[in-house]
Amino acid sequence: MFDCITILGPGLLGASLLQAAKARGLCRRTAVWSRRPETRLKCEGQPWCDTVFADPGEAVAASDFVIVCTPVDTIVPLLAQIAARLRPGALVTDVGSTKSLICRHARAALPDNVAFVGSHPMAGSEKTGLEHADPELFLGRACFVTPLVDTPPADVERVARFWKNLGMEVATTTPENHDEIAAHLSHLPHLIASAYCCYLSARNPEWIHFAGPGLRDTTRVAAGDPALWKAIALQNREEILRALAGFEHELQNLRAALHNNQPFPLQHLLERGRDYRLRLRPLGDKPKEC
Amino acid sequence: MFDCITILGPGLLGASLLQAAKARGLCRRTAVWSRRPETRLKCEGQPWCDTVFADPGEAVAASDFVIVCTPVDTIVPLLAQIAARLRPGALVTDVGSTKSLICRHARAALPDNVAFVGSHPMAGSEKTGLEHADPELFLGRACFVTPLVDTPPADVERVARFWKNLGMEVATTTPENHDEIAAHLSHLPHLIASAYCCYLSARNPEWIHFAGPGLRDTTRVAAGDPALWKAIALQNREEILRALAGFEHELQNLRAALHNNQPFPLQHLLERGRDYRLRLRPLGDKPKEC
Repeated sequence: MFDCITILGPGLLGASLLQAAKARGLCRRTAVWSRRPETRLKCEGQPWCDTVFADPGEAVAASDFVIVCTPVDTIVPLLAQIAARLRPGALVTDVGSTKSLICRHARAALPDNVAFVGSHPMAGSEKTGLEHADPELFLGRACFVTPLVDTPPADVERVARFWKNLGMEVATTTPENHDEIAAHLSHLPHLIASAYCCYLSARNPEWIHFAGPGLRDTTRVAAGDPALWKAIALQNREEILRALAGFEHELQNLRAALHNNQPFPLQHLLERGRDYRLRLRPLGDKPKEC
Repeated sequence: MFDCITILGPGLLGASLLQAAKARGLCRRTAVWSRRPETRLKCEGQPWCDTVFADPGEAVAASDFVIVCTPVDTIVPLLAQIAARLRPGALVTDVGSTKSLICRHARAALPDNVAFVGSHPMAGSEKTGLEHADPELFLGRACFVTPLVDTPPADVERVARFWKNLGMEVATTTPENHDEIAAHLSHLPHLIASAYCCYLSARNPEWIHFAGPGLRDTTRVAAGDPALWKAIALQNREEILRALAGFEHELQNLRAALHNNQPFPLQHLLERGRDYRLRLRPLGDKPKEC
């Protein structure tokens, strides 16, 4: 159990985290910092929030566990800002969707008597803001914990145990391996949906009135925050570019089958796609207990 | 009101159609034909099904409205098979997801004293089979009605009125225009999801355990029936190939922005994508009354 957990950036994820940590008795006290006065006002008086700070250094000064939940391009600057105020022995993690850049620079930004281990809980939503917080957001979801080669195993274990205690299924891997997987399962699918919506918008925006449930689902993620996703895409651009090249190769197979009017390669592509999709565990199957 | 509606191929759509037509008093009697004995057995005794036939010619002989709900590559052969048995003055439509090939060949396959107008109700699902039938499947959805240039307007109006009576929003256009729109809003998004699943399956099938709700939604349609979608893709291959070329051009814009590390074009792409996606009417907004 932690004495005090501080969340820097109490949006959907950060607020859900504190609700879940309080509900499961994982800490005695909680503290939050937000850059925005209106968010700090919303946090005041919430049952999952004991103290609200206007200064991030003050927010972390008394905490033994600090979780940075701000957009990926602000995580390292914020760590540099709080570095001198962290308690010796404090444990620090983040929930950024990219890991290589953040983990490398976070270690360099923090003093040696503070532990840092990067995390990426795969439990987002196209919704943002603490009003959509849900303490069950994490149940049965995957969470990456991404130590560097010289991160002490005891620190990795403390961070992993926290996510397991929220009901997540934790995978420990390198930041680089995480970024390759996230590019394939999250970042590129998001950018494909955005690019497809752009294409439809340029092609004929009025056709949207004829859209059915298929288009609605395949493009849902394109409604996400452009600024957040721009930062993610640029931080992980090399892995995304590699994944994009692989996907474009598969699109070439599709184009060849259509162009040559070949039923067998087309059926094979559709069958392989279906077989993969059917292996995705239905959401209803997520375990209700951790 | 029709005297008798015959459905050839009572799957998800056909069975939902008869349930809705009965509930809304659009016909006195219903008849169905299915190629499969097990489907005919399932239809026997259903409240929405008055007579079940093992022969498609017999199933249509007494009907004034025939709706062909079989896979797109079987519609024209089936029309040729029933042509001599149709009642003079009967109205015939189909629900195929492609229209140019079907409408051209359907007119040629049928006698002059029978009316044919193609339809495409945009109300599918990745589920198939009459056990998933739902009389509310059509409410607020778009339906294309696709006459040829020489189709009598009164026949177009009879078919359009039927779909409106089921609660659909009807758009009348040429088969060629329909196929262009369907390639963009339905066929290509389906094939992209299938190709993406293929790519992930080849890249590393074990990563699937880390998939979150984003990938689940963007790839849902890839679980559809490969044989049905192969036939749709081949019938509409020219329009799909044109749409694919346009989408690949947008992917090139994405690649250039990432490769050159350019935040502004990337943000612009994400914003245009989001603006388009936000214009999609939420499913909850569909009108409950027609």
